Amino acid sequence: MKIGLDAMGGDNAPVETVQGAVDAAREYGIEIVLVGKPEAIQAELAKSDTVGLRLPIEPAASVIPMDEHAPSTAWRRQRDSSLSVSLQMLADGKLDAVVSAGNTGAVVSGGTFMLKRIDGIDRPALGVPFPAMGDIGKVFMVDVGATPDAKAFYLVQWARMGVIYMERVMGVQNPRVGLISNGEEEIKGSELVRETFPLLQQSGLNFVGNVEGKDIPNGVADVIVTDGFTGNVILKTTEGVAKMIFDLLRSELTASPITKILAAGLRPRFRNIGNRLDYAEYGGSIVLGVNGVLIKPHGRSNAKAIKNAIRVAKSAVEQDVMSVFREVGLSA
Amino acid sequence: MKIGLDAMGGDNAPVETVQGAVDAAREYGIEIVLVGKPEAIQAELAKSDTVGLRLPIEPAASVIPMDEHAPSTAWRRQRDSSLSVSLQMLADGKLDAVVSAGNTGAVVSGGTFMLKRIDGIDRPALGVPFPAMGDIGKVFMVDVGATPDAKAFYLVQWARMGVIYMERVMGVQNPRVGLISNGEEEIKGSELVRETFPLLQQSGLNFVGNVEGKDIPNGVADVIVTDGFTGNVILKTTEGVAKMIFDLLRSELTASPITKILAAGLRPRFRNIGNRLDYAEYGGSIVLGVNGVLIKPHGRSNAKAIKNAIRVAKSAVEQDVMSVFREVGLSA
Repeated sequence: MKIGLDAMGGDNAPVETVQGAVDAAREYGIEIVLVGKPEAIQAELAKSDTVGLRLPIEPAASVIPMDEHAPSTAWRRQRDSSLSVSLQMLADGKLDAVVSAGNTGAVVSGGTFMLKRIDGIDRPALGVPFPAMGDIGKVFMVDVGATPDAKAFYLVQWARMGVIYMERVMGVQNPRVGLISNGEEEIKGSELVRETFPLLQQSGLNFVGNVEGKDIPNGVADVIVTDGFTGNVILKTTEGVAKMIFDLLRSELTASPITKILAAGLRPRFRNIGNRLDYAEYGGSIVLGVNGVLIKPHGRSNAKAIKNAIRVAKSAVEQDVMSVFREVGLSA
Repeated sequence: MKIGLDAMGGDNAPVETVQGAVDAAREYGIEIVLVGKPEAIQAELAKSDTVGLRLPIEPAASVIPMDEHAPSTAWRRQRDSSLSVSLQMLADGKLDAVVSAGNTGAVVSGGTFMLKRIDGIDRPALGVPFPAMGDIGKVFMVDVGATPDAKAFYLVQWARMGVIYMERVMGVQNPRVGLISNGEEEIKGSELVRETFPLLQQSGLNFVGNVEGKDIPNGVADVIVTDGFTGNVILKTTEGVAKMIFDLLRSELTASPITKILAAGLRPRFRNIGNRLDYAEYGGSIVLGVNGVLIKPHGRSNAKAIKNAIRVAKSAVEQDVMSVFREVGLSA
């Protein structure tokens, strides 16, 4: 198996990307192709003992900036970018999967155009493991931003792919599907939700009905489906609220010498909570609906997040999720 | 000033509603009309010293259930309900404002039909003070659920009313308006966002552009405008994430005798954070766009939340927000 890593993609590239690749190559024993500027990658590799690890470099001259203002066409304007070179190798069958922590819009658009959509899948979607009580990453939300304006039948296609992902990659049996809504009462639900609800009921999926934002962390469903606008807002709101609470905790617990001492004794406990909410543990999002395993970890990924994203890519390849995704497309 | 309280509305009615009214009548020196079942209200009043307080009872024979499945028509089917009687008194000019912690759908629909919409305002909206860093309730989000399927010009009308509310009731000068989006880049934003953006730019309001979910708690805008579907999802997600983190804290900090002792010493600090996120401090949401001051505190309101909602109602009446809202309608 050969997994390509966009070594230049992400806020902390190439330092953390290369370190994550080294750790993953050692732990999983797979070949990881580092795509990007050879000198920069070489300089990072030199910091680790890489004897016996398979970490070839594939040169790419440019990098798509994280704050690129026209990300949807960046892949085309920068054919020599680490992202475009990675995707081209995947499209050409020279790689089994690609991991890129680069600009999300560029990854989704590049993936959609360069890998092409799966036949019968109308729009790509970004699926992401979501923090929840119980096991880490037990909830998978799709779409979190690839397709802001969705139609009801897109959501059904995404739900099918989400279910396959949860079954094959996360080992969840008969995953339950929930539809994000603003409530369960008669007057609730947007037009899209009211159209999607009956389609999911008739889909043969294990559909558990509408799910409110407050219920997501409770694990009432394994796959949460929504349009890319709402999903992105949920993800970002979660990030903002968690940050607000941790900022409040920090300011309250460092307010006096006594609170500092007490809090120091509880540090391992706070760290446990932080880990539960740490995106680095979750292995990143996946671009669903394109012809290839394309994993997009958080832009702020550290080495651990990159390593976990590579683990998810490896698992998706081993479980051959692409073949099953293609069956969804054929039957759609 | 006479404020009507739906004494039977809310999960903890009439115990907490009547207690909240007693506290508010004492603290603010205003008359509060308790609408509902006289015996039930009388029994609660008997628990407090109400000498000198103006707390008349207005009889209403029935109560709209909190889990009413057809809330949009409940006001009409139950004309004798505490909600409908309260709203009718407000419509007839016998009250200056109404506070109801009852079923949200029933309050919004009842308010819209019984009070009528303000001329020129096309749809009602539910606005709510939102937890944020800095001062409590400094961020006001509209709509959080009254109108799930919105049009761009509704959002502009709601933004105008939100600005007036923040200026008059919350004392914020020249409030900044932000539009919820899934990012600021070119490919981001739903169709509704892309239509609303230029309208807000041309509105003369202090529009600061798109706001992501993660930025809401940072106070990047004073008034956050979005459709009722997205706003409700944001509110509920915030609730769910906060609960998840507090549940994790509780389980980590009670894990051993030692953590319990350390955590006990920090209890006042944790309480400060809880208060910052406590809906009871925020005074409840307001139904914007109807002819009358209608305040809707959380369904789970305790006495403090009811008292704060009455304070907000009083302030809205004193500041004559209705006249200013009507000017928005006339100029829309």
